[in-house]
Amino acid sequence: MADPIKQPVRYPELADPLAQPRYTGIPTFFRTPYTQDLSAVDIGIIGVPVDIGVTNRSGARHGPREVRNQSTLLRKINAATGVNPYARLSVRDLGDAWIEQPYTLEGALGEIEAFMRKVVDAGVTPLSVGGDHSMSLPILRAVAAAGSPRTSSRGAPAGPLGMVHIDAHCDTGDDYMGSRYHHGAPFRRAVEEGLLAPRRVIQIGIRGTVNDPDIWRFSRESGMRVVTMDELHDKGWRCAVEEARRVVAGGPLYLSFDIDALDPVYAPGTGTPEAGGIAMIEAQRMLRGLTGLDVVAADLVEVSPPFDHGGITAFNAASILFEMLCVLAAARVVA
Amino acid sequence: MADPIKQPVRYPELADPLAQPRYTGIPTFFRTPYTQDLSAVDIGIIGVPVDIGVTNRSGARHGPREVRNQSTLLRKINAATGVNPYARLSVRDLGDAWIEQPYTLEGALGEIEAFMRKVVDAGVTPLSVGGDHSMSLPILRAVAAAGSPRTSSRGAPAGPLGMVHIDAHCDTGDDYMGSRYHHGAPFRRAVEEGLLAPRRVIQIGIRGTVNDPDIWRFSRESGMRVVTMDELHDKGWRCAVEEARRVVAGGPLYLSFDIDALDPVYAPGTGTPEAGGIAMIEAQRMLRGLTGLDVVAADLVEVSPPFDHGGITAFNAASILFEMLCVLAAARVVA
Amino acid sequence: MADPIKQPVRYPELADPLAQPRYTGIPTFFRTPYTQDLSAVDIGIIGVPVDIGVTNRSGARHGPREVRNQSTLLRKINAATGVNPYARLSVRDLGDAWIEQPYTLEGALGEIEAFMRKVVDAGVTPLSVGGDHSMSLPILRAVAAAGSPRTSSRGAPAGPLGMVHIDAHCDTGDDYMGSRYHHGAPFRRAVEEGLLAPRRVIQIGIRGTVNDPDIWRFSRESGMRVVTMDELHDKGWRCAVEEARRVVAGGPLYLSFDIDALDPVYAPGTGTPEAGGIAMIEAQRMLRGLTGLDVVAADLVEVSPPFDHGGITAFNAASILFEMLCVLAAARVVA
Amino acid sequence: MADPIKQPVRYPELADPLAQPRYTGIPTFFRTPYTQDLSAVDIGIIGVPVDIGVTNRSGARHGPREVRNQSTLLRKINAATGVNPYARLSVRDLGDAWIEQPYTLEGALGEIEAFMRKVVDAGVTPLSVGGDHSMSLPILRAVAAAGSPRTSSRGAPAGPLGMVHIDAHCDTGDDYMGSRYHHGAPFRRAVEEGLLAPRRVIQIGIRGTVNDPDIWRFSRESGMRVVTMDELHDKGWRCAVEEARRVVAGGPLYLSFDIDALDPVYAPGTGTPEAGGIAMIEAQRMLRGLTGLDVVAADLVEVSPPFDHGGITAFNAASILFEMLCVLAAARVVA
Amino acid sequence: MADPIKQPVRYPELADPLAQPRYTGIPTFFRTPYTQDLSAVDIGIIGVPVDIGVTNRSGARHGPREVRNQSTLLRKINAATGVNPYARLSVRDLGDAWIEQPYTLEGALGEIEAFMRKVVDAGVTPLSVGGDHSMSLPILRAVAAAGSPRTSSRGAPAGPLGMVHIDAHCDTGDDYMGSRYHHGAPFRRAVEEGLLAPRRVIQIGIRGTVNDPDIWRFSRESGMRVVTMDELHDKGWRCAVEEARRVVAGGPLYLSFDIDALDPVYAPGTGTPEAGGIAMIEAQRMLRGLTGLDVVAADLVEVSPPFDHGGITAFNAASILFEMLCVLAAARVVA
Amino acid sequence: MADPIKQPVRYPELADPLAQPRYTGIPTFFRTPYTQDLSAVDIGIIGVPVDIGVTNRSGARHGPREVRNQSTLLRKINAATGVNPYARLSVRDLGDAWIEQPYTLEGALGEIEAFMRKVVDAGVTPLSVGGDHSMSLPILRAVAAAGSPRTSSRGAPAGPLGMVHIDAHCDTGDDYMGSRYHHGAPFRRAVEEGLLAPRRVIQIGIRGTVNDPDIWRFSRESGMRVVTMDELHDKGWRCAVEEARRVVAGGPLYLSFDIDALDPVYAPGTGTPEAGGIAMIEAQRMLRGLTGLDVVAADLVEVSPPFDHGGITAFNAASILFEMLCVLAAARVVA
Repeated sequence: MADPIKQPVRYPELADPLAQPRYTGIPTFFRTPYTQDLSAVDIGIIGVPVDIGVTNRSGARHGPREVRNQSTLLRKINAATGVNPYARLSVRDLGDAWIEQPYTLEGALGEIEAFMRKVVDAGVTPLSVGGDHSMSLPILRAVAAAGSPRTSSRGAPAGPLGMVHIDAHCDTGDDYMGSRYHHGAPFRRAVEEGLLAPRRVIQIGIRGTVNDPDIWRFSRESGMRVVTMDELHDKGWRCAVEEARRVVAGGPLYLSFDIDALDPVYAPGTGTPEAGGIAMIEAQRMLRGLTGLDVVAADLVEVSPPFDHGGITAFNAASILFEMLCVLAAARVVA
Repeated sequence: MADPIKQPVRYPELADPLAQPRYTGIPTFFRTPYTQDLSAVDIGIIGVPVDIGVTNRSGARHGPREVRNQSTLLRKINAATGVNPYARLSVRDLGDAWIEQPYTLEGALGEIEAFMRKVVDAGVTPLSVGGDHSMSLPILRAVAAAGSPRTSSRGAPAGPLGMVHIDAHCDTGDDYMGSRYHHGAPFRRAVEEGLLAPRRVIQIGIRGTVNDPDIWRFSRESGMRVVTMDELHDKGWRCAVEEARRVVAGGPLYLSFDIDALDPVYAPGTGTPEAGGIAMIEAQRMLRGLTGLDVVAADLVEVSPPFDHGGITAFNAASILFEMLCVLAAARVVA
Repeated sequence: MADPIKQPVRYPELADPLAQPRYTGIPTFFRTPYTQDLSAVDIGIIGVPVDIGVTNRSGARHGPREVRNQSTLLRKINAATGVNPYARLSVRDLGDAWIEQPYTLEGALGEIEAFMRKVVDAGVTPLSVGGDHSMSLPILRAVAAAGSPRTSSRGAPAGPLGMVHIDAHCDTGDDYMGSRYHHGAPFRRAVEEGLLAPRRVIQIGIRGTVNDPDIWRFSRESGMRVVTMDELHDKGWRCAVEEARRVVAGGPLYLSFDIDALDPVYAPGTGTPEAGGIAMIEAQRMLRGLTGLDVVAADLVEVSPPFDHGGITAFNAASILFEMLCVLAAARVVA
Repeated sequence: MADPIKQPVRYPELADPLAQPRYTGIPTFFRTPYTQDLSAVDIGIIGVPVDIGVTNRSGARHGPREVRNQSTLLRKINAATGVNPYARLSVRDLGDAWIEQPYTLEGALGEIEAFMRKVVDAGVTPLSVGGDHSMSLPILRAVAAAGSPRTSSRGAPAGPLGMVHIDAHCDTGDDYMGSRYHHGAPFRRAVEEGLLAPRRVIQIGIRGTVNDPDIWRFSRESGMRVVTMDELHDKGWRCAVEEARRVVAGGPLYLSFDIDALDPVYAPGTGTPEAGGIAMIEAQRMLRGLTGLDVVAADLVEVSPPFDHGGITAFNAASILFEMLCVLAAARVVA
Repeated sequence: MADPIKQPVRYPELADPLAQPRYTGIPTFFRTPYTQDLSAVDIGIIGVPVDIGVTNRSGARHGPREVRNQSTLLRKINAATGVNPYARLSVRDLGDAWIEQPYTLEGALGEIEAFMRKVVDAGVTPLSVGGDHSMSLPILRAVAAAGSPRTSSRGAPAGPLGMVHIDAHCDTGDDYMGSRYHHGAPFRRAVEEGLLAPRRVIQIGIRGTVNDPDIWRFSRESGMRVVTMDELHDKGWRCAVEEARRVVAGGPLYLSFDIDALDPVYAPGTGTPEAGGIAMIEAQRMLRGLTGLDVVAADLVEVSPPFDHGGITAFNAASILFEMLCVLAAARVVA
Repeated sequence: MADPIKQPVRYPELADPLAQPRYTGIPTFFRTPYTQDLSAVDIGIIGVPVDIGVTNRSGARHGPREVRNQSTLLRKINAATGVNPYARLSVRDLGDAWIEQPYTLEGALGEIEAFMRKVVDAGVTPLSVGGDHSMSLPILRAVAAAGSPRTSSRGAPAGPLGMVHIDAHCDTGDDYMGSRYHHGAPFRRAVEEGLLAPRRVIQIGIRGTVNDPDIWRFSRESGMRVVTMDELHDKGWRCAVEEARRVVAGGPLYLSFDIDALDPVYAPGTGTPEAGGIAMIEAQRMLRGLTGLDVVAADLVEVSPPFDHGGITAFNAASILFEMLCVLAAARVVA
């Protein structure tokens, strides 16, 4: 496998949107500089254009590009919190985790892991944009192996991570149609591999239909806290945040946001939509509520542009990504 | 008129989505077997491709096919309730109530009634997918004539039914532009014909604009309970459910869901949208709250695919239909 | 500059939708008669097809036509309030404020002001449909110069107005890329020109991102009441209405609704969307809550049809416009 | 039945697009003045929003409005021929032939005929925009009864007309599903009623599939000249024009253009598309080739906006309509 | 692997579109009966929902369902040729070649081959609808192994086939990113495996861009006749047909139509579009020109509905499929 | 005004699509390296996101980004000609000509000219992507001032250029609504300023409608050769190429391609579409026919993504741009 970080695009400095209209320029994530030099980067935003792990509708391979495109609509400062993630940190677009083995999922997952290991080993906090949810597994492998990029000594694995997982699905299923890896299984595999501490995992927004209740059973029996959509709808986003902070306390954590957690009107462009989901403002407020937690890495997955219309999914995804960036920035600044 | 049940498609057994990806196969409702043999069927899902009863934008004739298409995204078990409607009941796609007189509304309504009479007489609970709302009248005629398919002896009419009616419009209007039958009038006609007991009818989600307030007057003066959108927004879905259970108590009831009850962002593909409607999760939870009621038949109407985009209306309609199926399954199992 | 009111279309009487289906006829606003004779008009609805004041995506020049088109879906009477704005008032479509200088923003704003002065001087309450938000400034100039069309003697300026401003953005920014006028600055200019009394101004729905916090500072330091989206989400629409009524008390006021106040799922067709906004039913109820206030003029801005899909933005805009019309009608009848 | 011409919109003069941008104003056909006063009109463009005569997909009821909308993109002078149809003639938008009996096709056809009789009796050349093709029958009845509006004395029927008919379908079918009238039958009925002289009729662009070859048989056995799509593709548009001029020679003629004559890429928004049709430039050139013929009336039918995307069908339809207007103008000026 | 033909839908007889409107019913290919009983079938239309062989944009897995949906717009008799393929043959929808190994391309290809072998062994002529072009290889394996289903004795392989291949790409590439099988390589593999006789192969419509000219070299050096788009544009469809008939003479042949052969305006919904392609009418006429050839099997591939709009690709694909069905029917009747 | 070339993105080497799938990476034009270092560049592709020069529908400011996006679908070698423009030349994406004065057209044109002067002065051949057609004027100013970047000594103006101009409109109009500069006038201004030699200018594809025939008069009376669409349709692309080569002979020339030259089915995403235009394959072949001419600069204008659907316009534009790149490469290699 070739060197996973070999795209040589460079943006030496942050584009200044006050001087340059937002509809201009080559679209990187939030118009941040592209770099392959990891030494001066605090937070790296990374595209992961893989979707061969889906069980139904594909297209998430095109997610990173369209999220980049829509992210140019955003400005610097978060109106709700006043946070400017660029003010004290170096945020860079690291390009895509190139997929050189697009025909075998295990090969692709291996490449992603190798790419992420380099990023994490360089002390960069990775914020990944998918791509289907199977990609979370190799990222977790890389992050858990290295530990928190800020607080752990290199080489000493941090041990199992906690996780705030916002999604319509538990993604703790078992083998499906002959494959051990797919987008419905990453967190079962992660528990089995010791990458996640299930008692420090909360899953929020779970709903829809299943063919086999085993998926829910695994989440619950392993000790994960499952907040169904109905519970969230009953108790509100603030309760979910409190519950999340309680569950994940005590160590570093991963943050994974599957765009299908949102109601399909906010995110039609996704592979396995489930009716009756989270409203954008609830999602934004939940993410803001995670500020201060020791989030060491995060991903946003399952944006499938071919099923989108008018770019609404990619735009909402970019807005979610900005909130995640603010959470990571807060964690990074504190650290 | 030809035999209304003559399409001879057969699916001897339920497609197993664990063995067969959901994007494969010929799309029946929820990938259930098609049959014309009513003897072994508990719940029959029926397309009613008629839309000549509309007052403005047509297209609902294409509703059944697109709801079938989107329904293949759903799996077997309801995550919110744990119900698997296929577990103990035979659920079948009965095809469409063929429209052989597409140029006269009265002719079409006669055909639908004949088709539904066969279904109900065979002891099958009909779950109909429209099609415009004028179709509810012939279904009510068939159901009221036969009584509850489960509890009444055949031939002994059950008398007027109760009804939970979720809609943006009362649909209790009078003649319009020379026609006694149209999609804004079915329930006035049903009251006049003794098919509905208006004091056991609740209408939820009513809003928008009218040209003639007579339509509201009829609903209220006949004794129906009208829950406007503003009242629903103030009091919440749980109150609406309690009110519904109170109103319809005491006998069998019909369940009618007009997709325009939803806010147009959830259901742009409909003929007479009204801004400011019900959110999907509220609709789903209201329907779940009807579990245990003696619902003897149900319909989902006014899905107009030509005005849809990205299939969101048909997808939400399929999700509503699944909740209705679960309610019918619960009623059927108890009976 | 030519006479700004020279289009000679006439609709002598209100089209009667009970006699004429809503899909027929040439689309004026709500199918009201067009006129250029201002002498018999109470409320005039005016298109303002200008969009050269935008900072990012244009297209609002096409807003008036598509709002007219979708407004034909609405009927006469407001179901939530029972108000029929046509019952006691003469409501007319006054056509567009022709833009004869489309290549210079200042020229266009001058034309709009001249057009609006004629309207206001004739005692007509203007309800304007944009177009980008830079157009509010010349309308305010015309209205403030003339005073309330109903209560002030002509020629005696009414002095600064109050304002209820529903928007994702404060629009109180300063010069941008060399231009004093643009769609992010109208209300700073209006304060500076003495057209608005900032302590009688409330801004509701503010959110998103900014590049320069100066815009928020101006709003707050000038004395405006800023209700952010988070505050609105926390306290609800009823609180916002109470706060609005408190703030604007004591004089005539302007009502400005930027369609991007709505969540982008309700209004994708706009130039600068911000995720996580107001739901339609909340917007409708807030507007209904303004009934009885002395609103002397109003505008609805930033509908950009090229970014819309399925007409949902224009349809929701037409529904908002109808609520605004009812508020203006109530104010006018009382006066 | 009410007076068919009662909409009182007026545009006293032609909008001047050099003074007023094309994206402004209320959209009439080509931005011509609306009028109900037929005395000063040479050519009247008329919307016919009826679609209950279709056999498959409806939506053509929305055709007139969207063709009006897209027609505002056109300017005054035909670049190919130099013709300015407005230069010597009064061209007006006469509004829609209101449909007051939308639930029965025969009733609707009766209304259309009454409206057209008034138009023709006033000496106005009608250019009608549908609507489905069933509408051609009542127009032919009105025109044939009155004779050429220019050359015949009123009341003395002109006798059977010739026709240039550009379409994918012959539309000479017999009864369908119980209805004598539908959009596949108008010209069979017209021949039976003596309105058309079949030996002076040419049908161009015929293709696709049929269920019953009787429709082709009627066209050919009655004496019509059928130019199939394959023949047109082989011989070219110039031959078709020559053949048309030969066939229709000797008297006044009707011109009917079904938008489904175009290849579906040019006209996706239609009810019964047939793959492999006429390219726009061929259609334009064929129409230009009819200049000088004694065309006394014309229609453009089957534009179904709900099946359109991006307005391409309505835009191409408006462009075709402009060519038809030029042909009618040439005929009128000569007369 | 499970029995590949196990879906038990049945349509005992051809739906009669004169009795049943085309917008009704469960959509099988051309509304033909579904069956799993191969004994009475002449031509079987088969969906192959696989797309993991693509090199860029996926989505062709959804092709069979949407082609089925749009195919319901077609009627029985071919207007251009008078052929009614249902008149003397039993045409059936055999459902999909279920993909039980969706995560490995080789596994999927194995399944497809097994399914096709059963079909061919039963003497049924297979007309397959993809799905990406990698699927042609296993079909060729099955067909070549069995020989012509009509003329060869079972078990005696027919030897290499000829082929008419209409496509923008040669699809004779070598390994790509580590995979021997992908949608750009099936015909190189087929030549290598002795399934195709390259001197009896013609490729029509080749154009676009390549990264490695080796793909063209293989086609030409192996002896295939390559008709580039420019040559086709210069010489016309009739020449291409003559050339095709000359090249493939002397034995049975396969017919493969990649929808990206069409210009992207006719087929936007495909994975690797190439500008400047074949017009629909040219494609239709070329296919009609193959009538009488000994075509023993055929496929239509690369319809990717997520990239389609308004169904135009699937509609044109269904129209192409109908022409292919007529060619197969002619070959079958003669045999 | 700030330094017009200040974006510091770099791609040290051409992305290799055989190693990296085309759906990955940050989209530059054809995935070429971005650079601001002009010293090593032969051909520079430049975005010009300006659209305030339009007379009707805007949106072309978004053109460069979407053409970049779709251009990633293309590979290296031109199948029709075998040319690989990257083989012997350094082709780079130079980013956008930043617009720092977006509110005044003259200011924007000044910025573009300054940017282009730097490019041309560095000996780089500019290939510009718009943006509206008013941008051609400042590019012509820069190019004419510098002379041919390859053959002229710097500072010695080359004098008036020839031009091949493919467009639906002559764009030789005079002032419009008070503005001397707009997208319908660049070439009149260029003639007046001595930048173009009108007798060495050919305009191909002219058609549609005009309000004032003065625009045609100027083209013809100044000596330009105007090939109308009808002439092109009659004589074919080969004749147009011959005529073009004859007209422009004798000196360096500019190549300007307005995407609205194409028929609107190929390019719906443009501001002023004209029905009945050039087919893609004809446009491609005409451009290939210009190979060998001394083309010193070129532009592709009027791609308006908000009016596009499915990216077809941007995709066809990218394909046209690739042909233009090949023409420039051939001219450059020879020079």
